[in-house]
Amino acid sequence: MALVVQKYGGTSVANLDCMKNVAQRAMKTQAEGNQVVIIVSAMAGETNRLLGLAHEVHATPSRRELDVLASTGEQVSAALVAMTIKALGGKARSLLGGQVRIHTDAAFTKARIRTIEGSKVKETVAAGEIAVVAGFQGIDSEGNITTLGRGGSDTTAVAIAAAIGADVCEIYTDVDGVYTTDPNICRSARKIDRISYEEMLELASLGAKVLQIRSVEMAMKYKVPVHVRTSFSELPGTMVVEEQADLERIVVAGVAYDKNEAKVQVIRVPDRPGVVASLFGELAQQNISVDMIIQSPSREGDKSTDVTFTVPKSELARCQDTIRKTAEELGAASVEFDLDIVKVSIVGLGMRSHAGVAAKMFQLLAKEGINIHGITTSEIKLSCIIESKYAELAVRALHEGFELDKAQAPSVPPPKG
Amino acid sequence: MALVVQKYGGTSVANLDCMKNVAQRAMKTQAEGNQVVIIVSAMAGETNRLLGLAHEVHATPSRRELDVLASTGEQVSAALVAMTIKALGGKARSLLGGQVRIHTDAAFTKARIRTIEGSKVKETVAAGEIAVVAGFQGIDSEGNITTLGRGGSDTTAVAIAAAIGADVCEIYTDVDGVYTTDPNICRSARKIDRISYEEMLELASLGAKVLQIRSVEMAMKYKVPVHVRTSFSELPGTMVVEEQADLERIVVAGVAYDKNEAKVQVIRVPDRPGVVASLFGELAQQNISVDMIIQSPSREGDKSTDVTFTVPKSELARCQDTIRKTAEELGAASVEFDLDIVKVSIVGLGMRSHAGVAAKMFQLLAKEGINIHGITTSEIKLSCIIESKYAELAVRALHEGFELDKAQAPSVPPPKG
Repeated sequence: MALVVQKYGGTSVANLDCMKNVAQRAMKTQAEGNQVVIIVSAMAGETNRLLGLAHEVHATPSRRELDVLASTGEQVSAALVAMTIKALGGKARSLLGGQVRIHTDAAFTKARIRTIEGSKVKETVAAGEIAVVAGFQGIDSEGNITTLGRGGSDTTAVAIAAAIGADVCEIYTDVDGVYTTDPNICRSARKIDRISYEEMLELASLGAKVLQIRSVEMAMKYKVPVHVRTSFSELPGTMVVEEQADLERIVVAGVAYDKNEAKVQVIRVPDRPGVVASLFGELAQQNISVDMIIQSPSREGDKSTDVTFTVPKSELARCQDTIRKTAEELGAASVEFDLDIVKVSIVGLGMRSHAGVAAKMFQLLAKEGINIHGITTSEIKLSCIIESKYAELAVRALHEGFELDKAQAPSVPPPKG
Repeated sequence: MALVVQKYGGTSVANLDCMKNVAQRAMKTQAEGNQVVIIVSAMAGETNRLLGLAHEVHATPSRRELDVLASTGEQVSAALVAMTIKALGGKARSLLGGQVRIHTDAAFTKARIRTIEGSKVKETVAAGEIAVVAGFQGIDSEGNITTLGRGGSDTTAVAIAAAIGADVCEIYTDVDGVYTTDPNICRSARKIDRISYEEMLELASLGAKVLQIRSVEMAMKYKVPVHVRTSFSELPGTMVVEEQADLERIVVAGVAYDKNEAKVQVIRVPDRPGVVASLFGELAQQNISVDMIIQSPSREGDKSTDVTFTVPKSELARCQDTIRKTAEELGAASVEFDLDIVKVSIVGLGMRSHAGVAAKMFQLLAKEGINIHGITTSEIKLSCIIESKYAELAVRALHEGFELDKAQAPSVPPPKG
């Protein structure tokens, strides 16, 4: 008997027919001798409908109340799916964030999970019921409703899987697995059978929308095996698992792109200790995550520097004034905002040990006449900022150049035996 | 400074414009120097939309899950209204049933409030915030979400008013007060300025839909002054208050009718002790409220009796089989169901001391050729079951016959000074 966590995204519970499909799949898993916990998202479109109402009320509505509002989407799904299982003769019980005691911090609309008490879920499945947990939501220490940010149901699923020691966490989504790149812009994209947490983490951070970043972080931390697959077929998808260090692997596992970042340039900031820190301190206080940061060498003449960084486009409206004001206080010459950029990245565990990967990436882009406006790297990824009009061209050039269209040994081979 | 509870029904929060109206009214009340708690219903139509989804899943969906589903309607309203107040520059905080700690029993879809902790609401208003409480919902001792049945937000409002010792509980609805009868079927119906709890209770029980019965019971028990009025004007409505025993009063305060009952006749039940009890015992176990019960005198020959009673039409589907089965086990000859009935009633504190009211009612109905199929009475009301096609005719005849169309001394005069 295994303990299985299944998470169903918005398209998997888009209407009552889809919910019936979810109910039957969960019941089949249970009938095969497993204990089953399912985590449901809001019905496709529902979260946007609710947030639309809120934004009709005000351009920047109260974040506490946004969470009270948005969390109803998952509550509706959980109730309807539990009802459906019972209507089909099964046993089920819906559980909300507060009932599972998913404790988070108080950062409304993007809260982070602190602790989960697994006991309520365990009791439920031990009683032969399918636990139907509303994803995306928790409560803070004051009992206020919080939400985990877009895609937060993935994190709910992995966190619950970790808390109850589940054997697998299946993430059902509208695609059938993780691809070497976005199949919508590169026809030769291939489904990856197995991928390491580290690679998946980079791909998720870089805009591959299959899994929420924090869910992958959490899966890696608690070693929860994650299976990304579709609820519309029985085909296996992509297993996200631990790296198998003793085996050879390919260099680049995937190509990602992210159109959701905006570039900010603060020109001629006095180059004194603490000046740059105070700029980013202000942004951190507003809970805005800054991605790439590039500081130019100090100018000889006026001892000034240019600071370039990227922030999510969605946060720009909220932080634009702060940036301008802080820049002015620091004595910078001017601030420029550029929304017309894209970040393209390559990811692969093999980059650790293979030299020349960066050079090859730059060559591939140069061959297509694409200028690079900024670079960041980690041990297993390489990102370039380019003009957004080149996004698709760059992805296809990198995918082909690193031969991702060809069947290769997986970066993480299946476990032996 | 007064402590004011305001309850806004579904039509008062039907859309964002209406919510703005609610927000402004609450803020105005606060600006006048009061502490303000508002209780909101679901947006008009929302509860029906949600229950419609549930009934697409199953004809008799899980009642626990129904409550998880339906309670989202009020949660959405509370979040949006709190947001609106803040968008208008006010201070507000939404509170759900569980956050206010509205503890109920576990009778899903028709739970009864056991206790309310007033502290959370008091803290909120003491901090200068308008507390925006989601009506209709509570939690049971296990932390499950419960709902209080249709119109339950009225009960939430009065219960909170009682728990925090509010000076008045204003119930905003789509009519501007309590009328002597339904103005839709009797043009000469008049708005009542002041009415006693007892009379209001009978009117509510008899189908006048202005206030939920339990809210009136609770107001009476805790002596909460209730003001029924409309949110679409500043006009005063109807005050529901304690009886002023020392003053003269009119005989009949109002005429009510109720089309929501069905008549059940169990024919030739053996007339032995305990037999009738076991029939109603079964219904009580299913949480079905039986209204009128009439038992015919025992037949000489076979020592049998006919038992007639009424149940809500909405519950009939749920109890029909139980009734048939129990009747069969008891040895009854047959069971008949009649949906084609209406209950018309007159209500008035004066009926206690005035003889001949019943006789006058029967005469007024007889004059119109209306047959009476059953009668129940209480100290201050008199109800007759008649064929449903006579409903409007009977109401008009009684309203005119008891001279409710004429301006009269109110049954409860305004307090002195």
